Amino acid sequence: MEKPDYKIAMLGAGNVAWHLAPALEKAGHQICCVYSLNLQNAEMLAGQLTNAEATDNLDFSQSPADLYIIAVKDSALPELLQQAVFPANSLVAHTSGTQPLSVFEPYKNWRGAVFYPLQTFSKNTPVNFHDLPFCLEAYDENAMLLMQKTALSLSKQVYQVTSEERKVLHLAAVFACNFTNHLLGISTEILQTNNLPFEMLKPLIEQTVQKAFSQHPFSVQTGPAIRHDENTIELQLELLQNNPGIAPYRALYELLTRSIQQKN
Amino acid sequence: MEKPDYKIAMLGAGNVAWHLAPALEKAGHQICCVYSLNLQNAEMLAGQLTNAEATDNLDFSQSPADLYIIAVKDSALPELLQQAVFPANSLVAHTSGTQPLSVFEPYKNWRGAVFYPLQTFSKNTPVNFHDLPFCLEAYDENAMLLMQKTALSLSKQVYQVTSEERKVLHLAAVFACNFTNHLLGISTEILQTNNLPFEMLKPLIEQTVQKAFSQHPFSVQTGPAIRHDENTIELQLELLQNNPGIAPYRALYELLTRSIQQKN
Repeated sequence: MEKPDYKIAMLGAGNVAWHLAPALEKAGHQICCVYSLNLQNAEMLAGQLTNAEATDNLDFSQSPADLYIIAVKDSALPELLQQAVFPANSLVAHTSGTQPLSVFEPYKNWRGAVFYPLQTFSKNTPVNFHDLPFCLEAYDENAMLLMQKTALSLSKQVYQVTSEERKVLHLAAVFACNFTNHLLGISTEILQTNNLPFEMLKPLIEQTVQKAFSQHPFSVQTGPAIRHDENTIELQLELLQNNPGIAPYRALYELLTRSIQQKN
Repeated sequence: MEKPDYKIAMLGAGNVAWHLAPALEKAGHQICCVYSLNLQNAEMLAGQLTNAEATDNLDFSQSPADLYIIAVKDSALPELLQQAVFPANSLVAHTSGTQPLSVFEPYKNWRGAVFYPLQTFSKNTPVNFHDLPFCLEAYDENAMLLMQKTALSLSKQVYQVTSEERKVLHLAAVFACNFTNHLLGISTEILQTNNLPFEMLKPLIEQTVQKAFSQHPFSVQTGPAIRHDENTIELQLELLQNNPGIAPYRALYELLTRSIQQKN
C-alpha cells in the first residue's frame, strides 16, 4: 500500500471527522487544522491529534492544504460552502452519501470532489477503516488520484462512484440497513411480549447475513412465505393481531409476505 | 460441562439430522441408528457415524434408546408419528420450531418432547453448535433433565421454552431473518440496476447487526425516514418508480418508512 503524506484540513468535528481525522494521521498524513462552528468541538478533536490547529473561522486563504475534507451534516453543507474561503484551485471534498458532486458547481475557484466513507459512525464505536468502502468522485483526474492515494492509505476498498451511482447505493443501504434495523427492532418487541431475550436470535441472524454475501439472498429465502405455508401465516397474523403492542406490524407482515411470494 | 453418554436414535437424514447426529457423536453419545424413508439417505448419514445402523423401518420396538430425535419436515411429522413403534415409555422428541408439544397427545405410550435447535441448517454450511440456542419442552421433569444434559453437551445456550413461547420466537425469527433476508435481496437487486457489488454494503450491514445486539434497534435507527427527510424520501421513491425492475418495492419502501416514523 502506498504511503503518501498529505497535508489535510478537516472541516467538521462530528462523528465522521472524529474517526476520520485520527485515522488519516495514523496513516501518515498531517492534519493541519480542524474547523467547527463550535470552537470547543474543534478543540476537542484537535486535542486528539498531534499538531492540528482548532478554528471556527472559515477563511483558509492563509492555510494551504493538499485536501480540505468537509464532514458536516447535509443540511449545513450549502451555507458552509457559501462562507468558506480556500486558496485558488484547492481540492475540496465533501463526505456525504446523498449530496451530488454538482453542489460544487457555483465554486469555480476550487476543485470540488466527493470523499464518501460508506459506513455509519458513532463516537463511541470503533471503526475498522481497513475494510471500509470509500466512494470517490471528482471533476479531474489529478483530484481523483490524490483522493485515491489518500483512501488507499486507510482502506483496501476504494471505488470510483458517480453521483448517480451514489444515489443507488444510498437507496440500497436504506433497504439493507435502515429498514433491516427496523425489522430487528420489531423482532425485539415481539420477543419482549413474552420476555424472551433477543440474544436467542443472534446465531440465526448472523447466519442470514453471512449467507447473503455468498449467495443471492432470493436464492436462499426460507420461512412460511416462500413455502406458501398459509396455515402458519394465518396463525402468525393472529398472534400479531391479538397483541396490542405488536398489532400495528400486521400490515408489514402481510406486505413482506406477499413481496416474497411474488418474487418466487 | 457434563459429559453424559446417551444412546440416541436419529429419525431423519435431512439438513438438521446431517449436522446434529455427528455433533452428538462428537459430544460422546452413541447414535445407534439412522432412519429415513429413503434408505440410501439413511445409509449416507450412517456412513458419517461410527456405529449407526441405517434403516427405513419405523419399528423400533427391538431398538431401545435413551432418546429418539425426530428431525423430519413439519409436513412429514404426523404420518411418521402414526406409523412409528417405540418401546413403551420411550423419550421421543421432535425438532420443529412450529409444531406444538401437543402433537404427541395421542401417543400415551411414549414421553413426547421438543428438542428444537434455533438455527437454519444447510448441508454444506458448517454449524457452530457451541452458541446455538436449544429450546426444550417436555411433559415431565426426567425427560427435561435428559434433554438438558444432551443439549448442554453441545451448546452453552439451553432454554426451557413452552409451545406458546416457541410460537413467539418463530414469529420474531420471521421478521429478523426471513423478512430481513428479503430486504437484503431487494438491496442486491437495486445495486444490480447499476452493476454495483453487494459487497460494498457489507461493513454497513455488519455494523447494523452488531449494534442491534448491544442497544435496542429502535434507539439507534438512522436514515431518511427517522430524520423525516422528505426530500430524500421523495427522490428515493422516484428512483424506485423509474426502474421497472425495482418499481414493485415502492409500496414496501413507503410502508417501512411510515412504520419507522410512527415508532418515534
